[in-house]
Amino acid sequence: MLARLRASFGRQGMMTTLGVEVTAAEPGRVEMSLPYDDRFTQHHGFLHAGAVASVPDTACGFAAYSVMPPEASVLTATYTINLLAPAAGERFAITGEVVRAGRTLVVCRGEAFADGDQRPFAVMQATMTAVFGKAGIQG
Amino acid sequence: MLARLRASFGRQGMMTTLGVEVTAAEPGRVEMSLPYDDRFTQHHGFLHAGAVASVPDTACGFAAYSVMPPEASVLTATYTINLLAPAAGERFAITGEVVRAGRTLVVCRGEAFADGDQRPFAVMQATMTAVFGKAGIQG
Amino acid sequence: MLARLRASFGRQGMMTTLGVEVTAAEPGRVEMSLPYDDRFTQHHGFLHAGAVASVPDTACGFAAYSVMPPEASVLTATYTINLLAPAAGERFAITGEVVRAGRTLVVCRGEAFADGDQRPFAVMQATMTAVFGKAGIQG
Amino acid sequence: MLARLRASFGRQGMMTTLGVEVTAAEPGRVEMSLPYDDRFTQHHGFLHAGAVASVPDTACGFAAYSVMPPEASVLTATYTINLLAPAAGERFAITGEVVRAGRTLVVCRGEAFADGDQRPFAVMQATMTAVFGKAGIQG
Repeated sequence: MLARLRASFGRQGMMTTLGVEVTAAEPGRVEMSLPYDDRFTQHHGFLHAGAVASVPDTACGFAAYSVMPPEASVLTATYTINLLAPAAGERFAITGEVVRAGRTLVVCRGEAFADGDQRPFAVMQATMTAVFGKAGIQG
Repeated sequence: MLARLRASFGRQGMMTTLGVEVTAAEPGRVEMSLPYDDRFTQHHGFLHAGAVASVPDTACGFAAYSVMPPEASVLTATYTINLLAPAAGERFAITGEVVRAGRTLVVCRGEAFADGDQRPFAVMQATMTAVFGKAGIQG
Repeated sequence: MLARLRASFGRQGMMTTLGVEVTAAEPGRVEMSLPYDDRFTQHHGFLHAGAVASVPDTACGFAAYSVMPPEASVLTATYTINLLAPAAGERFAITGEVVRAGRTLVVCRGEAFADGDQRPFAVMQATMTAVFGKAGIQG
Repeated sequence: MLARLRASFGRQGMMTTLGVEVTAAEPGRVEMSLPYDDRFTQHHGFLHAGAVASVPDTACGFAAYSVMPPEASVLTATYTINLLAPAAGERFAITGEVVRAGRTLVVCRGEAFADGDQRPFAVMQATMTAVFGKAGIQG
């Protein structure tokens, strides 16, 4: 399972560009780490919601992928993100975990924390979809 | 109004990094253009949802900002994005427009289109919040 | 298609209880009408968001159902609703329409209008799922 | 705080009509109970998503209200609900709790459980807004 995750993660240009690392992974739950980077700021100098959102989205996708059958690929169908406070800090811890998995839809929750804060500054509710046998879609 | 938008846009590191351009703006509606860039891909080689989402989020934020009082700043409170198809193409047209504006909350809709396709590949429903008199928050 | 919609609608106890009527239907788009009823109010005397939300949810479900294969059933996977103003009025017009239909997921938009107001007081972005061959699930 | 909640709850026609009871309440967290009722079914005979959604929406609203200043009123700005399985059962336990409270926006999570099931069949991410000094809005 971890090998599948790592292979898939290694193919994500965006995660490499953002400097994201996978810090923990188990079936149904993935943790990642995102550094502050002034290439990805919004107009007040905080990390842009789009940069932030891409990480719990990916963590939720991997958490979902980790409980899918080996032949499935995972795509994000939809997510809702609430930004509770600006992404202010040097390093952000991001989690994604499965709430409940059906055959084709897997619902996940993501959270983002700044610099060891115990309260999340962003929360996500995401719907991942398992794709079977689609050419060109792998991982 | 356009001058305020451009000044705010120019402060967004992420928009510069993604190569986003503002292609049209009027009160309550903003259009942007996003090029494909393999630094921002997901694991199947398409643009990552996070890169895609950051643009309608920004377009919606600017559309909301354009109808707010001059002394207000704008922050994204929450958005929901549906990814209807992979972000496959060379250039993506993104729109953000105000559905209804209250005093502190402005609800917007965003859409993303690939290479002249008439059907969006992503749609967003976003809630922007006007912030008044908060130190360090401008634009 | 209309016959399928009507049969399905007639099985919805909640729509009957709320007094909802289908006022228009074509492939991919359904309109409904909801009367004010003080059995379904929230704490300020307006219609409760739950009563309101159930109608664009149903309208979106039917809009999705109208473009699905005949053997499919429809279930709501997820929706996001924004309540832009209180549901103040005597009668509410509600629309649901398909934004884009995939094989198993159909994304729709719903809107709710009070007493001929041109601006919606609620907007919904919904993800409907087609279910095939599940015992006990019909329509 | 409980007295304020009870007074507000007692004014909600919809909660009375649905037969909802408040089963627990503490600052930032509220639990409710919803019985099955065939007046509120969808087309497969399960409880309608609109009936289900109105309860975590209310529970989240009360959880938010419980941490707001005494002079504030609470309104739902937006919520996203995922329906993970049909609402199949005789009685449903619903929770709403505050994730993080700002001055005007309070983000909450809701969950719904059927008949003692440990896994939720519905999850909600909700944004509540505090309203100050608006005529006709109380509780």
